[in-house]
Amino acid sequence: MDPIKYNLSEDRIPTHWYNVQSDLKQPAAPVLHPGTMQPVTPDDLAPLFPMALIMQEVSTDREIEIPEEVRDILRQWRPTPMFRARRLEKALDTPARIYYKYEGVSPAGSHKPNTAVAQAYYNKEEGITQLSTETGAGQWGSALSMACAFFGMQCKVFMVRVSYDQKPYRRGLIESFGATVTPSPSDQTASGRAILAEHPDSTGSLGIAISEAVEVAAQDPKTNYALGSVLNHVLLHQTVIGIESIDQMELAEDYPDIIVGCTGGGSNFAGIAFPFIGKKLRGERDCRVVAIEPAACPSLTKGRFAYDFGDTAHLTPLVKMHTLGSTFVPPGFHAGGLRYHGMAPLVSHLLDTGAIEATSVDQTETFAAGVQFARTEGILPAPEANHAVAGAIREALKCKAEGTSKSILFNLCGHGHFDLQAYMDYNAGKLVAYEYPEEEIAMALSGLPPI
Amino acid sequence: MDPIKYNLSEDRIPTHWYNVQSDLKQPAAPVLHPGTMQPVTPDDLAPLFPMALIMQEVSTDREIEIPEEVRDILRQWRPTPMFRARRLEKALDTPARIYYKYEGVSPAGSHKPNTAVAQAYYNKEEGITQLSTETGAGQWGSALSMACAFFGMQCKVFMVRVSYDQKPYRRGLIESFGATVTPSPSDQTASGRAILAEHPDSTGSLGIAISEAVEVAAQDPKTNYALGSVLNHVLLHQTVIGIESIDQMELAEDYPDIIVGCTGGGSNFAGIAFPFIGKKLRGERDCRVVAIEPAACPSLTKGRFAYDFGDTAHLTPLVKMHTLGSTFVPPGFHAGGLRYHGMAPLVSHLLDTGAIEATSVDQTETFAAGVQFARTEGILPAPEANHAVAGAIREALKCKAEGTSKSILFNLCGHGHFDLQAYMDYNAGKLVAYEYPEEEIAMALSGLPPI
Repeated sequence: MDPIKYNLSEDRIPTHWYNVQSDLKQPAAPVLHPGTMQPVTPDDLAPLFPMALIMQEVSTDREIEIPEEVRDILRQWRPTPMFRARRLEKALDTPARIYYKYEGVSPAGSHKPNTAVAQAYYNKEEGITQLSTETGAGQWGSALSMACAFFGMQCKVFMVRVSYDQKPYRRGLIESFGATVTPSPSDQTASGRAILAEHPDSTGSLGIAISEAVEVAAQDPKTNYALGSVLNHVLLHQTVIGIESIDQMELAEDYPDIIVGCTGGGSNFAGIAFPFIGKKLRGERDCRVVAIEPAACPSLTKGRFAYDFGDTAHLTPLVKMHTLGSTFVPPGFHAGGLRYHGMAPLVSHLLDTGAIEATSVDQTETFAAGVQFARTEGILPAPEANHAVAGAIREALKCKAEGTSKSILFNLCGHGHFDLQAYMDYNAGKLVAYEYPEEEIAMALSGLPPI
Repeated sequence: MDPIKYNLSEDRIPTHWYNVQSDLKQPAAPVLHPGTMQPVTPDDLAPLFPMALIMQEVSTDREIEIPEEVRDILRQWRPTPMFRARRLEKALDTPARIYYKYEGVSPAGSHKPNTAVAQAYYNKEEGITQLSTETGAGQWGSALSMACAFFGMQCKVFMVRVSYDQKPYRRGLIESFGATVTPSPSDQTASGRAILAEHPDSTGSLGIAISEAVEVAAQDPKTNYALGSVLNHVLLHQTVIGIESIDQMELAEDYPDIIVGCTGGGSNFAGIAFPFIGKKLRGERDCRVVAIEPAACPSLTKGRFAYDFGDTAHLTPLVKMHTLGSTFVPPGFHAGGLRYHGMAPLVSHLLDTGAIEATSVDQTETFAAGVQFARTEGILPAPEANHAVAGAIREALKCKAEGTSKSILFNLCGHGHFDLQAYMDYNAGKLVAYEYPEEEIAMALSGLPPI
């Protein structure tokens, strides 16, 4: 039998994270304090994050050691498997070799625990007893609440109201891990009350939920804030995915010509791509790296590379990133984890400097890809991951048309067990193909801070 | 770090199933034709099953080879991991060593694909183009529809109506694999119409859904029937679980003093236990084997060991098993996969001959166990699997009370991602502790066939 699975033994779990900042020709733009317009200092961030994470945020070391206590938990599901999608290849009748790294084997069902466990650990070490956070689709809320349960910490999750109402079972999972879940906007914070005063029926957004979670953390010395994407240290923690993938491609005696990852805030994309991009930046080995995002929330392909706030209430520092404007509320498509107005500064920087490409895809194409994947490979992908599946299928069909046999690696960042309503809508022909919301984005971009 | 995960490499996937019939001191009672009361012949079963499976049903060979095509699919997720539950042990403060074999890593989320893939394969080999089946909780329907998708076959699933209505997302998964799902009782079969005529609001049962699926298969030469538990060949296919576990316990340099599995029809229990029971029956190595069932559907602990029908409309042959009576409809507790009136004849026989023990547990205790497991081990178990978790915790606490350090192995047969309503009810204190339905069972037992 031709191999389909590339497993690494437990002792091959990475000992260090890979920091792409070490290999950048020019450093990414600094994060600015919105009051002074000067680069933020560690002390500015200390009310929200433990010092260990703040130091990771600005580190330029190539390798940062993963604490033993973190690896001790990660090894339950890491190294995650990498598969060759032979049945999908056959169905597509493509000469391409398609590989996927599968992060859905984590107990919370996605890549998110990779950073959730690390963040909970560092906060616990500094005496923090509660973490506050936001969640959209619920992947991040599930992961952080699980990590907090492991370390005996409290967890307070602000869940975008539309998801809170539409996905009660995600909420049920988060609550089963012992966390409290509050629909956002809520009346528990000034940010939430301000939104509700203006829009009593607001369905919420990640930007609003971030404001609420940040506000709660800023007001309680024993509560810190945790973010599931965007920030440098979050992307850093996800690089275990790519580090393992490099070893697994070696087992497969292959190397990816093309790497595909979906992008919302950028963390699963960074996780699989950064270690390969490091090789590329250091001139060791080249490959195409493709970020694929929703056509209805196209920060990389249609956003501006500019300083903007990370949240709606403007409680965060200013970061230079591809953004659609912090007041932009994306249409209600089903990949809730990709409904964010901005993009990780490091991913934005790599696009700006030509190290990666970006493209977009409508949700109906992503669900067609997801269903084809489920019927051939058995795994039902999360709607976010369906973007990567669609991107990989596009590249594989290009290979077929060109008659070239390329190697494609994509990150299947989570399963879709909590997203069946979306699949049922798709199966019933009821899924809407959202158009590019040009006017709304133009409006939001016109409100960017004048820097 | 002390090991927590015992992984076998891809090449350690079993090559043969283990057939416990080879080691029985006295053979299990034969299956009878209800018309003649004589043992059924292979020809009697041919309208429903392919000959290869019928031969497995009656084989007394110790080892039966797994076809290469079946192993080629199973190896995507097999060998499945075995874990040491160190964080649970710590939370229980027990000297016991708790191991769990985790079958939830299969794409359909449970142990069911182990037999679904094999059954689809043998049917495909004999020219069958469609399989009909029943499903309760939906684990089996998901598994068989996935297997049929892999082999390019049609799949028709009769889903117990209460589950169809309460668990639309399980249905969504089955439909995403390309199968059709019909709520049972339906007006598509004579069996269904007969039930509806008498009980227009019937919420259905596994026994009724089996009748409908069998009827459909019996009437179409290109359609066969597939059952997800109870039958000898189904239990046989699940023994990959226990065969791998023996190897993994060796890796752990340990051997189980106690094996715990939950029982509905008996297949996941048989899967983990039979290979160990084989060693026990052959006098090689002893261990306690505990079947744990719902207090509200207690076929092993309160049923009669007698000949009974496998379905409600009495379309199946008569099998000797622990039964609550084929007309018994269990109360609506949340472990839908355990809501069956009978028990696998082989499991029944082993209980009758003293090779295994049986006990029961109420659903509130099982969910308490499941939540404790989720908060320590991260994995949210299926309600069925919660029975095994509860059983393992009971044994571990007994060790604590006695001050003995025993080794406990249980089968975590699936995840609970499609069962969050049950967890939400539990978390809200709304879960009902069903009492033993003594009168209903006495009534159903009074209608047993007079053999």
